Amino acid sequence: MSDYQTIVIGAGPAGTAVAYPLAAKQRVLVIERDLFGGTCPNRGCDPKKMLYSAIETKLLANHMQGFGLSGEPQINWPDLMAFKRAYTSQIPVGTQRGLTSAGITTIHDAPTFIDAHTLQIAGEKVTTDNIVIATGQTPRALDISGHQWAKTSTDFLDLDQLPNRITFIGGGYISFELANIAAVAGAKVTLIHHNDRPLKAFPQDLVDALINQMTAIGIDVKLETTPTEIQQSSGHFTVQTSNGAIESDLVINATGRIPNLAGLNLSDIGVLTDEHGIQVNDHLKTTVENVYAIGDVVSRREPKLTPVAGFEGAYVAQSILGSTTAPIHYPVIPTIVFGTEKLAQVGVSVNTALAQPDVYTVEHLDVTHWYTYNRIKDPTAQALVVKDAAHNVVGIASLSSVADELINTFVDQLTPTGSPIYAYPTPASDLSYFA
Amino acid sequence: MSDYQTIVIGAGPAGTAVAYPLAAKQRVLVIERDLFGGTCPNRGCDPKKMLYSAIETKLLANHMQGFGLSGEPQINWPDLMAFKRAYTSQIPVGTQRGLTSAGITTIHDAPTFIDAHTLQIAGEKVTTDNIVIATGQTPRALDISGHQWAKTSTDFLDLDQLPNRITFIGGGYISFELANIAAVAGAKVTLIHHNDRPLKAFPQDLVDALINQMTAIGIDVKLETTPTEIQQSSGHFTVQTSNGAIESDLVINATGRIPNLAGLNLSDIGVLTDEHGIQVNDHLKTTVENVYAIGDVVSRREPKLTPVAGFEGAYVAQSILGSTTAPIHYPVIPTIVFGTEKLAQVGVSVNTALAQPDVYTVEHLDVTHWYTYNRIKDPTAQALVVKDAAHNVVGIASLSSVADELINTFVDQLTPTGSPIYAYPTPASDLSYFA
Repeated sequence: MSDYQTIVIGAGPAGTAVAYPLAAKQRVLVIERDLFGGTCPNRGCDPKKMLYSAIETKLLANHMQGFGLSGEPQINWPDLMAFKRAYTSQIPVGTQRGLTSAGITTIHDAPTFIDAHTLQIAGEKVTTDNIVIATGQTPRALDISGHQWAKTSTDFLDLDQLPNRITFIGGGYISFELANIAAVAGAKVTLIHHNDRPLKAFPQDLVDALINQMTAIGIDVKLETTPTEIQQSSGHFTVQTSNGAIESDLVINATGRIPNLAGLNLSDIGVLTDEHGIQVNDHLKTTVENVYAIGDVVSRREPKLTPVAGFEGAYVAQSILGSTTAPIHYPVIPTIVFGTEKLAQVGVSVNTALAQPDVYTVEHLDVTHWYTYNRIKDPTAQALVVKDAAHNVVGIASLSSVADELINTFVDQLTPTGSPIYAYPTPASDLSYFA
Repeated sequence: MSDYQTIVIGAGPAGTAVAYPLAAKQRVLVIERDLFGGTCPNRGCDPKKMLYSAIETKLLANHMQGFGLSGEPQINWPDLMAFKRAYTSQIPVGTQRGLTSAGITTIHDAPTFIDAHTLQIAGEKVTTDNIVIATGQTPRALDISGHQWAKTSTDFLDLDQLPNRITFIGGGYISFELANIAAVAGAKVTLIHHNDRPLKAFPQDLVDALINQMTAIGIDVKLETTPTEIQQSSGHFTVQTSNGAIESDLVINATGRIPNLAGLNLSDIGVLTDEHGIQVNDHLKTTVENVYAIGDVVSRREPKLTPVAGFEGAYVAQSILGSTTAPIHYPVIPTIVFGTEKLAQVGVSVNTALAQPDVYTVEHLDVTHWYTYNRIKDPTAQALVVKDAAHNVVGIASLSSVADELINTFVDQLTPTGSPIYAYPTPASDLSYFA
């Protein structure tokens, strides 16, 4: 008999989602080399949105100036960080305790595959029937001289003090979200991106409008700007770029994330990977029987998001328990950028629709005069509605202060059956906790 | 041939909802004796929530003090009122223009029934095949000495200046909502209610918690307190009650609303009414063939809300056009109080569930420590979950800053097919505008 029926490598949202449903029926081990809880609650979406609380409220108050409100609250960074740390400091121990309470064994170590049923853990060989790899991703290092001077989102989310001048390298949602937080909190912020199409999965119109918003609060967004070197002098930094030099007190590299594969020894046992992560089939099985991969570490096109990881974990648990033999079927997956406004989309994307004008139409609505948006003086509220040939709404994208709430309503409209995936974290994404 | 195929009496949310779908196929007249648009946009839910914008933002900023925000914005009442008036001043002309553009005739007058197919309008006899009565409700006057000194919600929503001391008489949602606005804006507010059970359709636990919140911001909530007389002296008022005297600069009577029936001459043509309004059957037909009644003026148990009025209007239009012969079937109807926190419920009510313990269970959740509520430092976030014998969630009630958003998610869960009715006005209640 194997030591365990299932070993889960990685205790983030994916790993815990697969472990819990198995616990009642199997001997389960969860092994984590870093922080129990994984990226999202320790150094990702959760702490990011903790910081966003005060930022968002200040922005709302700003919009209402002259419309009934006088005086704008200010951000107190040390208080904000203490608030965040009060949350994150509880995550690792809380996660581990939760797993243990469910009867799951936990080990803090970095495992190595010996064969498809055996892992080397803390100097011992441990056997198992099934293995689920859920090791996530980590920031990709810059490939330029002075790359060692750049910090990451993890560092930004745990700054004791807010530096005066911050440069964000990269035009993905992490850069946009953190740049907004830094700027509203009072930093002089520059964001650079190598081409003219940041946030490329989102509609260009709405990204342009978001950039205008971010520029309006003082962020210098430089497109077509490639970093070439980072120089350090007395604790200050110069980012040399194709478009001039930028003086900074902090440089954040957010140019992408790479799968956490180091040390697993996957190639020796035949688990195939590519630059995007571990290859899996539609059952989330790797190229080795009984070895699964879920969450951010897999090489798939689905957005790498906490609720997607949770959905995959729940699916693989069902597969292992034999409750399902069907391939995984994802519902519509909303994506969101918590920026100066919220930029969100769900369903058939505007980019997809624009590429197929014979199949889809896209309608651009300026909704600033609608009651909902006029009421909160939302400065740039707008929406893009994607309709199919039968004039049914099949997708929507929106930029507004309440785009998260709006998009979740469309999640329900577009998910008539099964388990919906809501934008995370939002009140709607708590739905299952009430069941 | 009749002058019109359908005459709609009342141009509020009910009347306009029935008129528009008919306009393409019929000669339609909408007659309004007061403000086109009706109560909701002119002096009801819409302007109330315009004022709430700044109030809500100040409350959110208050919650975040010490958690990243420093300094609380203040309410500027004249600015807030100007903001509201910029909206409401456009409603009557905008409503009338919208109807006219759709090919609907509009008349500003108070009609009187001559027979079931004839109305006296502006001195003329006008004939029609169908009549839809959608005249709404109006505040009920107090039945005490000095009742003429009491103002109404309509007056409160249009105050040039905020008086120092305001007394609200009545424990319904109008009193609670306006008392919260007045108190956060800086008034010294007293709210009196005749028995110990204000907001009686909502769960007692949550109402008690809301009262605690309102007390915490300085509102004196006096239960078991019946007004006996209002005295006026030099523009100030004394409300004598069973529980002492209350000095006020403004007294708002919000003890209930009565149907607008005066002058219609309903009894002569056989349309039966009772103290709650016009009696209708499950097709929203009155006791006279081809005379319908919809919206707040009907005597039915459904909550008297804008989206319910709209739902009924759309239904009657279908009936008149012959597209449906089925009785009206309401989806779940959410109700909400926009107070110091938002108190909302949908589905099987907690009160219903508590009365049938063999059928339902009710679970009380303190959710202040949940991520969503901890993130915004929601002081009293809680929820009551109603489950049936099969452990399905069939109802929920919640008190929190985001209860509107949460309840709308449950609307979708509890409305698997058909047109959902969302809490109004919210981003979700705009859903149909995107179609």
